[in-house]
Amino acid sequence: MSTETTNKEILRGGQFLVKETKCEDIFTPEDFSEEQVMMKEAVKEFTEREIIAHRDRFEAKDYALTEEVMKKAGELGFLGVAVPEEYGGMGMGFVSTMITCEYISSGNGSLSTAFGAHTGIGTMPITLYGTEEQKQKYVPKLATGEWMGAYCLTEPGAGSDANSGKTTAELSADGKSYKINGQKMWISNAGFCNVMIVFARIENDKNITSFIVEYDAENPNGITLGEEEHKLGIRASSTRQVFYNDTIVPAENMLSTRGGGFKIAVNALNVGRIKLAAACLDSQRRVLTTALQYATERKQFKTPIADFGAIKAKLAEMATNTYAGESASYRAAKNIEDRIEMRLAAGNSHQDAELKGVEEYAIECSILKVTVSEDVQACADEGIQIFGGMGFSEETPMEAAWRDARIARIYEGTNEINRMLAVGMLVKKAMKGHVDLLGPATEVGNELMGIPSFDTPDYSELFAEEKEMIAKIKKVFLMVAGAAIQKFGPDLEEHQQLLMAAANILNEIYMAESTLLRAEKNAKRFGEDAQEGQIAMAKLYLYNAVEIVAKNGKEGIISFAEGDEQRMLLMGLKRFTKYANYPNVIALRDLIAEKMKAENKYCF
Amino acid sequence: MSTETTNKEILRGGQFLVKETKCEDIFTPEDFSEEQVMMKEAVKEFTEREIIAHRDRFEAKDYALTEEVMKKAGELGFLGVAVPEEYGGMGMGFVSTMITCEYISSGNGSLSTAFGAHTGIGTMPITLYGTEEQKQKYVPKLATGEWMGAYCLTEPGAGSDANSGKTTAELSADGKSYKINGQKMWISNAGFCNVMIVFARIENDKNITSFIVEYDAENPNGITLGEEEHKLGIRASSTRQVFYNDTIVPAENMLSTRGGGFKIAVNALNVGRIKLAAACLDSQRRVLTTALQYATERKQFKTPIADFGAIKAKLAEMATNTYAGESASYRAAKNIEDRIEMRLAAGNSHQDAELKGVEEYAIECSILKVTVSEDVQACADEGIQIFGGMGFSEETPMEAAWRDARIARIYEGTNEINRMLAVGMLVKKAMKGHVDLLGPATEVGNELMGIPSFDTPDYSELFAEEKEMIAKIKKVFLMVAGAAIQKFGPDLEEHQQLLMAAANILNEIYMAESTLLRAEKNAKRFGEDAQEGQIAMAKLYLYNAVEIVAKNGKEGIISFAEGDEQRMLLMGLKRFTKYANYPNVIALRDLIAEKMKAENKYCF
Ligand SMILES: Cc1cc2nc3c(=O)[nH]c(=O)nc-3n(C[C@H](O)[C@H](O)[C@H](O)COP(=O)(O)OP(=O)(O)OC[C@H]3O[C@@H](n4cnc5c(N)ncnc54)[C@H](O)[C@@H]3O)c2cc1C
Ligand SMILES: Cc1cc2nc3c(=O)[nH]c(=O)nc-3n(C[C@H](O)[C@H](O)[C@H](O)COP(=O)(O)OP(=O)(O)OC[C@H]3O[C@@H](n4cnc5c(N)ncnc54)[C@H](O)[C@@H]3O)c2cc1C
Repeated sequence: MSTETTNKEILRGGQFLVKETKCEDIFTPEDFSEEQVMMKEAVKEFTEREIIAHRDRFEAKDYALTEEVMKKAGELGFLGVAVPEEYGGMGMGFVSTMITCEYISSGNGSLSTAFGAHTGIGTMPITLYGTEEQKQKYVPKLATGEWMGAYCLTEPGAGSDANSGKTTAELSADGKSYKINGQKMWISNAGFCNVMIVFARIENDKNITSFIVEYDAENPNGITLGEEEHKLGIRASSTRQVFYNDTIVPAENMLSTRGGGFKIAVNALNVGRIKLAAACLDSQRRVLTTALQYATERKQFKTPIADFGAIKAKLAEMATNTYAGESASYRAAKNIEDRIEMRLAAGNSHQDAELKGVEEYAIECSILKVTVSEDVQACADEGIQIFGGMGFSEETPMEAAWRDARIARIYEGTNEINRMLAVGMLVKKAMKGHVDLLGPATEVGNELMGIPSFDTPDYSELFAEEKEMIAKIKKVFLMVAGAAIQKFGPDLEEHQQLLMAAANILNEIYMAESTLLRAEKNAKRFGEDAQEGQIAMAKLYLYNAVEIVAKNGKEGIISFAEGDEQRMLLMGLKRFTKYANYPNVIALRDLIAEKMKAENKYCF
Repeated sequence: MSTETTNKEILRGGQFLVKETKCEDIFTPEDFSEEQVMMKEAVKEFTEREIIAHRDRFEAKDYALTEEVMKKAGELGFLGVAVPEEYGGMGMGFVSTMITCEYISSGNGSLSTAFGAHTGIGTMPITLYGTEEQKQKYVPKLATGEWMGAYCLTEPGAGSDANSGKTTAELSADGKSYKINGQKMWISNAGFCNVMIVFARIENDKNITSFIVEYDAENPNGITLGEEEHKLGIRASSTRQVFYNDTIVPAENMLSTRGGGFKIAVNALNVGRIKLAAACLDSQRRVLTTALQYATERKQFKTPIADFGAIKAKLAEMATNTYAGESASYRAAKNIEDRIEMRLAAGNSHQDAELKGVEEYAIECSILKVTVSEDVQACADEGIQIFGGMGFSEETPMEAAWRDARIARIYEGTNEINRMLAVGMLVKKAMKGHVDLLGPATEVGNELMGIPSFDTPDYSELFAEEKEMIAKIKKVFLMVAGAAIQKFGPDLEEHQQLLMAAANILNEIYMAESTLLRAEKNAKRFGEDAQEGQIAMAKLYLYNAVEIVAKNGKEGIISFAEGDEQRMLLMGLKRFTKYANYPNVIALRDLIAEKMKAENKYCF
């Protein structure tokens, strides 16, 4: 890290919890380069033309259309954005990858899943872990969409517990090939893929191993596919079981090392998670804009329903969560991109740099996956409600958005697993000394014992109090998690309800801080007047976040602490979640809604 | 009311907010009479055999099956439970009506909607407002299922604003008939109904008028139906547009008086609302039991997932909300039944007694509709999540439960409309002197000014502190609503965000109190040991309720009050939402989940 050349400070993953970030140091969607904006426009145009225009066909389970649109995306290079140029890709940075994913995913959940499975978990394991030969052979075909990829990890008995799969790989007597036997399920793109990343166990290995397996329906090599699954949403995404019956794979198609599959699975999912967050963002915007436009046209009681406070509140909350999701996603994406570049500058191989870059921010990836997948669900839910009865009809796009959103909380690690991972990884980082939690936690402890200051600070500057609130909710996490660790030690892992509460706090800290920093950065460069709406959203998001922090903190405290300790912690919680000047949240929501009504779209 | 003969005190509608109820005075599902239990068993058996067994056909939009099952329900008398014996029904009380509705609705949302539309809004307007001739002519046919009913209120331009419909009714020159012209939409049972309750406007009347319109496809009398709507859920419920083109209706088919239609619509919906709550309850139980059984069988990490704290928390919350829904629904249902009986005893006609009985508890009906429809949605959502990927598959019953639940927040008045209604009706009752809010609100004001007592009360008796908390959250409502009314006067109506917050508080008060009273009553008669799970649920529900009250109260206060007033109100809020001894909510959830795991079903 000593070779860092920029004068921008890049936090390590998880460090946001204990360090302050200057607004100049975060990247925001307003910082997109010209190239990135062009990418965005190109993808948007594609999405309108090729995806949105065919909404009905996707809903009618037209799997062939999904494949066809994927091929077209490949022809335009969209499948290879993240792939180095030497393997037929565009070799663009992580931010551009996110932009592509975001804008191609918003038209339809089926295409979004197909895109994510192909470019993320289907292609990345090879680019990140493949040998030169493997990359030469497979990546160009995947980057251009000539071949389609799938990722075969889950089995009937092995979902969240991915390393427990029963699929076996047996080395041949001559050592030249492996024979794979087993059953995979829920495999996206199975119906039209040419390459599968298959996870299987060799002998009694503790960890599974990963293989590149070609699939050709004409010459199936022991591979058979189940029927298409009938699903709640993402109807035109092909999802099938895959059976391997003495499938022969050349020995050189093992990815990475024997037993190295679990690590691949985990790392592929890290990238998958942050991209999944991106994949939800433009959907939120579309749902919001569609609902807003309906609400300004639909009249009841001689009034456009968008003029009713109940509806304005919904629109404002939808916008605020969307803005927060964008803020945190691009903050993390740029951190990843920067760290990759730092590693490259320090002489790391491209593979290594990418791997470590993403791994570093695994906590943030989990936070984003959980938060944004829940926001997109809530957004679509309110979208339906704003449409009233029409929201329940397949004629309007709300109900499909709601159904499609539901999968995002299940795959790429369920939200329960990701919540536990985020907190677990943070604790591990602390133990490894990568993030110093102990020092700050001790300070909070001392502060609790001390007498609070009764000075009234100067809050005249924009966000002065809000920044203090961010610092304070970080203390809540340290206080509650610190006390819980003291109490339970390594057994904390078994106290899942506490872990969930801690994760909820952690999520809100990251999201609220990112939102605030973005609005601050924009207010500084574009002027506070021009950013009135953004400022209001940052304040509203923070207020909601503080409420969630208080709720989850309290639940933890009253459950694991008693007597004096409980009283002290509750007092601390109160001190750390109290505003000197509460925002008028109703007025904030009204303002945000009015800004959008004036432009008749999500306009931030 | 002076003729009341029981020594049980029956509160008036809305009075729960300002009066204490003794646990002996509420009716609970454990109080079902032998007849009621028999009814429940009979309906359950029917539901298993005729509905659950054919789940796939309902999901495949088999509208004919819905009609067929409705006919069978009619043969067994289930469509006529609420109908007086002299009109071919069973003439059972309101509680039995609720039981029938609850247990017949849980198998499938499509049948639930068909049942609700037929027996509730399709039949009730005639039993409640019909002339003797109208009742003789139509009700027996509807009660036995020989004819099917539909309710035609909504139009493309008139949904929430039901009185704004454009459908017209024109009296013939000879005064013998009306000619109806117009378009209705979203009409449940349209595809197979024989009788429609149609709302139309005569000349330029302020209010719409209601008519009984016969429909015979062979002889359509100007009535045409649109195609079946394609919907998110309740797939086998027939929902169509209905067009009236010079449809001739005999003048004697007007229901009630000219311009009396709006009142009918409102009152029919009151009954519909509480029955809709009932219709959600057994669904919650089914989803919960199914999810629980899956969770005890499904192993990941060598552990049944039901042993993970994250899953236990979900199961416990699902159970607690279900228990709360049951508690409040049957409390209100019995209040309605008792009030009807009191009216009958006082010499009111059956019609009048029923009408006034239900109208009295319109506030509670709205509270129940909103709360239970949101609980059933959350329950199905967690059901999906517990099933993981399998929850997203049509092979398991979770996704259909989730889709079907979505409609309950839209029809019978959207949840926004019902929230505003509940608060609005309460304020009206106060102004009419039916519920004294001013007195108690003034007392709360005085208490705020006074010095809080620092005595430590004796909390040794079961629920002693919890009852105090109930009393305190009632004060929150009075304090916040009182201050808001003082500030805005009649303009409060325009401050919808405040109304929503007030409604959220009101909902929780009613639900939490009902839950506590039920658990208390049961603990007293069955013993605290035997009721450990119920006691835990009552405590957990209350804790969650207090959090919601605190959140919504705060949002209101910081938005409409400033400076000293804000400080004083926030202080009051803190005082009224603080426990002396917080419950260990994590332990409560664990206990509730373990109780269910031991019996492998929702067992309360
Ligand atoms: C449409 C769809 C597409 C998919 N595409 C792919 C794909 O392309 N490739 C692929 O390999 N897989 C794919 N999956 C599988 C997906 O990744 C899994 O469904 C997911 O990982 C969850 O696993 P599961 O379904 O076995 O649920 P389970 O792991 O059985 O989880 C059930 C419930 O238990 C909870 N749980 C599990 N373990 C714990 C624990 N330790 N503590 C607390 N709670 C726990 C979960 O959070 C969940 O709520 C897909 C799934 C779907 C539905
Ligand atoms: C499957 C289905 C079955 C149905 N069955 C029947 C039936 O059998 N008979 C029948 O007559 N109708 C039926 N309906 C219609 C149903 O009652 C209406 O959809 C419902 O009343 C809402 O009206 P709307 O759809 O016009 O929504 P709108 O009234 O347009 O509402 C749109 C949004 O605006 C909000 N809103 C409206 N007014 C206000 C306000 N003043 N303040 C704040 N917010 C407001 C609503 O809450 C909602 O969020 C059915 C609908 C569906 C979807």
